[in-house]
Amino acid sequence: MASTSSLALSQALLTRTISQNGSENRVSVPAFSGLKATSPRTIATVRRSVSTSSHSLRPTLVCAAAVEAIETTTDSSLVDKSVNTIRFLAIDAVEKAKSGHPGLPMGCAPMSHILYDEFMRYNPKNPYWFNRDRFVLSAGHGCMLHYALLHLAGYDSVREEDLKSFRQWGSKTPGHPENFETPGVEVTTGPLGQGIANAVGLALAEKHLAARFNKPDNEIVDHYTYSILGDGCQMEGISNEVCSLAGHWGLGKLIAFYDDNHISIDGDTNIAFTESVDKRFEALGWHVIWVKNGNNGYDEIRAAIREAKAVKDKPTLIKVTTTIGYGSPNKANSYSVHGAALGEKEVEATRNNLRWPYEPFQVPEDVKSHWSRHTTEGAALEADWSAKFAAYEKKYPEEAAELISIISGELPAGWENALPTYTPESPGDATRNLSQQCLNALAKVMPGFLGGSADLASSNMTLLKAFGNFQKDTPKERNLRFGVREHGMGAICNGIALHSPGFIPYCATFFVFTDYMRAAMRISALSEAGVIYVMTHDSIGLGEDGPTHQPIEHLSSFRAMPNIMMFRPADGNETAGAYKIAVTKRKTPSVLALSRQNLPQLPGTSIESVEKGGYTVSNNSTGNKPDVILIGTGSELEIAAQAAEELRKEGKTVRVVSFVCWELFDEQSNAYKESVLPSDVSARVSIEAGSTFGWGKIVGGKGKSIGIDTFGASAPTGKLYKEFGITVEAMVDAANSLI
Amino acid sequence: MASTSSLALSQALLTRTISQNGSENRVSVPAFSGLKATSPRTIATVRRSVSTSSHSLRPTLVCAAAVEAIETTTDSSLVDKSVNTIRFLAIDAVEKAKSGHPGLPMGCAPMSHILYDEFMRYNPKNPYWFNRDRFVLSAGHGCMLHYALLHLAGYDSVREEDLKSFRQWGSKTPGHPENFETPGVEVTTGPLGQGIANAVGLALAEKHLAARFNKPDNEIVDHYTYSILGDGCQMEGISNEVCSLAGHWGLGKLIAFYDDNHISIDGDTNIAFTESVDKRFEALGWHVIWVKNGNNGYDEIRAAIREAKAVKDKPTLIKVTTTIGYGSPNKANSYSVHGAALGEKEVEATRNNLRWPYEPFQVPEDVKSHWSRHTTEGAALEADWSAKFAAYEKKYPEEAAELISIISGELPAGWENALPTYTPESPGDATRNLSQQCLNALAKVMPGFLGGSADLASSNMTLLKAFGNFQKDTPKERNLRFGVREHGMGAICNGIALHSPGFIPYCATFFVFTDYMRAAMRISALSEAGVIYVMTHDSIGLGEDGPTHQPIEHLSSFRAMPNIMMFRPADGNETAGAYKIAVTKRKTPSVLALSRQNLPQLPGTSIESVEKGGYTVSNNSTGNKPDVILIGTGSELEIAAQAAEELRKEGKTVRVVSFVCWELFDEQSNAYKESVLPSDVSARVSIEAGSTFGWGKIVGGKGKSIGIDTFGASAPTGKLYKEFGITVEAMVDAANSLI
Repeated sequence: MASTSSLALSQALLTRTISQNGSENRVSVPAFSGLKATSPRTIATVRRSVSTSSHSLRPTLVCAAAVEAIETTTDSSLVDKSVNTIRFLAIDAVEKAKSGHPGLPMGCAPMSHILYDEFMRYNPKNPYWFNRDRFVLSAGHGCMLHYALLHLAGYDSVREEDLKSFRQWGSKTPGHPENFETPGVEVTTGPLGQGIANAVGLALAEKHLAARFNKPDNEIVDHYTYSILGDGCQMEGISNEVCSLAGHWGLGKLIAFYDDNHISIDGDTNIAFTESVDKRFEALGWHVIWVKNGNNGYDEIRAAIREAKAVKDKPTLIKVTTTIGYGSPNKANSYSVHGAALGEKEVEATRNNLRWPYEPFQVPEDVKSHWSRHTTEGAALEADWSAKFAAYEKKYPEEAAELISIISGELPAGWENALPTYTPESPGDATRNLSQQCLNALAKVMPGFLGGSADLASSNMTLLKAFGNFQKDTPKERNLRFGVREHGMGAICNGIALHSPGFIPYCATFFVFTDYMRAAMRISALSEAGVIYVMTHDSIGLGEDGPTHQPIEHLSSFRAMPNIMMFRPADGNETAGAYKIAVTKRKTPSVLALSRQNLPQLPGTSIESVEKGGYTVSNNSTGNKPDVILIGTGSELEIAAQAAEELRKEGKTVRVVSFVCWELFDEQSNAYKESVLPSDVSARVSIEAGSTFGWGKIVGGKGKSIGIDTFGASAPTGKLYKEFGITVEAMVDAANSLI
Repeated sequence: MASTSSLALSQALLTRTISQNGSENRVSVPAFSGLKATSPRTIATVRRSVSTSSHSLRPTLVCAAAVEAIETTTDSSLVDKSVNTIRFLAIDAVEKAKSGHPGLPMGCAPMSHILYDEFMRYNPKNPYWFNRDRFVLSAGHGCMLHYALLHLAGYDSVREEDLKSFRQWGSKTPGHPENFETPGVEVTTGPLGQGIANAVGLALAEKHLAARFNKPDNEIVDHYTYSILGDGCQMEGISNEVCSLAGHWGLGKLIAFYDDNHISIDGDTNIAFTESVDKRFEALGWHVIWVKNGNNGYDEIRAAIREAKAVKDKPTLIKVTTTIGYGSPNKANSYSVHGAALGEKEVEATRNNLRWPYEPFQVPEDVKSHWSRHTTEGAALEADWSAKFAAYEKKYPEEAAELISIISGELPAGWENALPTYTPESPGDATRNLSQQCLNALAKVMPGFLGGSADLASSNMTLLKAFGNFQKDTPKERNLRFGVREHGMGAICNGIALHSPGFIPYCATFFVFTDYMRAAMRISALSEAGVIYVMTHDSIGLGEDGPTHQPIEHLSSFRAMPNIMMFRPADGNETAGAYKIAVTKRKTPSVLALSRQNLPQLPGTSIESVEKGGYTVSNNSTGNKPDVILIGTGSELEIAAQAAEELRKEGKTVRVVSFVCWELFDEQSNAYKESVLPSDVSARVSIEAGSTFGWGKIVGGKGKSIGIDTFGASAPTGKLYKEFGITVEAMVDAANSLI
């Protein structure tokens, strides 16, 4: 494909996309690309139906001069009008829904108007154009701001009827921004602080790609990442984590607007938030600008954005002091305008106050006309870039092929052959080490594979040996060094994953510290970001570090979470099998729970079997009716296998089942499930060094589950297994009590 | 009790403690007090046995002059020797365990020696003396530092044999500091950033009590809170959250040492952490001091602590630049000394380098003798305070009675009568509103009841109407304003709860945002901190805010966590019942999942029934054999009740069971369980607007669970219930399919 033209490429990608629509549910390759806007939904989770729109593949060709015109300044009375249009679209939609957050859109309308109308580069008719500027509304509750902007800019995802069905069942305008519902929305925000973290990930992705692919004569990767965050985002610890990293990494093309409105839900921020945000960001290595009049200071805002763009080696925070609910005579500058409809009377008062004679949801003709140029200009931007890409591809075919892979998400042919396989004779090893073999094998064949650990690279075994560290001055490298910032790490990886479908980010810490990053992991699952979570030290098997470090309830807690796969591989083949699926399912994140301690390579495991989630590892019964079924996962599958040996010596027929991924087993046919766990066999024993919560469904009312339902303890591993009763003897006894 | 003398009080408390040892498991009143050191363990979770030690009740009386002597400076060669003793105790213990973290203790020995030997006020023979200075090792992996200090200071919890059994089964010296194992350890640390957050909670508790109880002539509450935190703690978002609050609150008696050693597990901190910590803390409102020579600059350290103590209106960060693994010729200043034993050869080299001729675990006689004064001086400190308390009690009997309640944890007689009760005729209401009635009722009768929300007070309904806001200048008030900092909030509450047994902190946010604070909640459970988590908006019932705000898997995820009670009350009586147990069980935290939407007061519920966890609400069968059992929780109990009505109209016998707290039901006798869920009745249907994960065990192999195993959606509540099938019709159909 490396030598095809850009157009041929587009068509090839389209063909691929269409052919995948019929592919197996949840195993589809992601269908976004830089060159088309078709977005088939093939997720397993049930949601309300969303129509998929298909747009023109070939952008209209417009001269490049038009592109440059975007940054020119507009007549200020028209700006006033456009800003008020944004305000009233938000007011009207919230009023109609009788629910929502009008305050932020009313305050942030000026900065966001200038940003979307004068600075940002995008193509409304192809929201997935690769080289677009990214925008993240970190203060996601103010989503009507973003919907209003997308509407004015000409995105088909937010038409007038969508604004009118704000927060209603099946609409494209849900109560918080959801990337999987609304093209033009890059990530899913609402939980505070996540968005700015996603923005850091998006900016990291751009910096990385630019360093890898740009040439002196062709800067094929070149976009900004903008974000608006509020006081709430600023208070959340995650924002400090990621902004510290953004400063460290020198993400010069990240520009964040801080909506400094002094109001949060509990009232004036002075009741809980009196730090100096400016100074903190300077300490974090950011360039900081203060726009004192965010309500009307259009030129101040413009100047600030220009200054921010001129600072290349640091991210910029533009603190914009605004009035929440600006324009509402009785509710502006108070918490009452934050999260509730203004009410009929106050809407009327605001209309009078801002001299707004228009009907609800009406966009004045001159405003409409002013914004209409973005459709042609956006098409021109994309066409310009496509031409640039064609030249790039001709001159740098190898690099272009890699970049296409990242843009399209198409996995390289035969990539799965890179995964290592094992026989029972292969040396035993900790699954964290086996995981490292997979990570390194995959990074070699996948151009978009990158990641790292939260300061535990040498414990999580996550270093990519063929690459150096992604740093401020070495951004083309692929080892990310997150420091001890688990929450920020997860959310940054969401941003990377959602930058381009071919990015496959992984991140790592001890399994127990998923507690620190759970909010980001849930958003991976919700927003269909196929992040791979490499979680080592997955049980009391980590030993002496004790109960603060020993996961107990964590397996259960992820098995209960929608649209995330919880893998607990037992050996090398299962580890490779878990990676195979994790890489394939780009819209479902994966968690791999991996052992610190050595484990043997077991007979009966295989990469392919992992796809079934649960499967028979060994069996000495006939007719699908063993005396007992022993079920294990991860490090305890070995114990189940040993217990089976003991029981077979006693003459029993025993089946051993590996339950490596419950979610995948759930997806299998009833016939397959019956072939593994026949309903006639009620004698079932499970073993897992974690909570037994949830196992009742697998072992049934008459089965037994061996596990740990208390916290662990500090002692050597062997001692812990014995004291907590995770032993062959316990399993044999339990089995015999049921036969 | 208000008029008894201090000694009589001690005896009364002791008597109470002893009588409680025979009380019902998990419902014991906490037994710590300011005046004794007996620590009976009555938790329900199974852990290795820990002997309870009983110490002298009456401290030896020593003249007050001795107390003052503590702050004098010691001959510097003896300081060297004591500092090296600490280093080698850490080295030797880690070496013997072949596991642990020697680097931090070797680097932090100087500052911690000076702190524990020259500044801190404590009584080694009564680790629970109320007015002691608190110390928190936030960088908990360096726990051998703390164990060495406790050993030298004369704490009976860490004798030589305890040091020798570091990180072994059943020892008092586990791999990370655990307050429930080792008297002298205030809180449980290890997960980074938690400790400094706990320290903020401890300092808040002191400031609050001092403001409430101190008199111009008698400052009965007066202690400092010290903490050591490392680079890892600094990187974690939680530390920024809580340090922002500490600055906002002006916690002048909080003094944190930042072990600035430039090394974390992944190597030099310059790979991920190049911000200016000093400037960030200044931005957060802290006083910042830099000790450049933390390895030998004893006088610099002393001067810094004195300066910190002199700054009354701000917390102080003392940045102490140290060398990790100081003294090790080949491993100092590298990550290799962070988290592994030095190895025999390097231990020898370090002994030579530091000219240390002593045997492993040996404390030189002059060092021993130097530290021995802390036993008498500590007793004198306590005696001095006890005398002060006796005078206080005489002059201010009412205040003294309140303070005694907070110190002892003894609940006021008849407190439970304050809880509201309801009849089916009482107006329906959201359980979040009913919760507010309970909070306000309890705050009136409980002197140590206080708390707040993470910027959602008006949504969580958590304001205490009789009190103002705890702020820098109004610290005696009881409404805490945490800002949007869920993680920090939870960990601060852990610190408050563990300051004194009579503190009952609650904290609040939307239930889905437990994801942000789960690491702190797990430490509540592990460290036996009876925090009450008030979690509102507990399902899709919150409506339009959509899937980012709608909990699905959260109930399951807490049911799987050890030693935490997950309540989902259905109405007023169940809400009051949940609070009753939450308040009583001081060593087990509680989570209350509460509705945003209005619910009716149901017939058949009661405060008392909640204690059983699951109970029959209505029943028209005889002989414990209904045709079907319908099980619900929270907002869905009403649906179960309505479905029962429908089915009864059809002539079926139906039992309705409320499953308000699974953990409590688990604790009931088999006979009781059988009376609620007879094993003969396999026709069981559960309904809950959340994940069905875990319900298999309750409804059995032949039952059905109605729930939501995907993410929610943005729409009005009624529409969501209908679309997700959480309806009376669905329950009736499911029941009929089983009968």
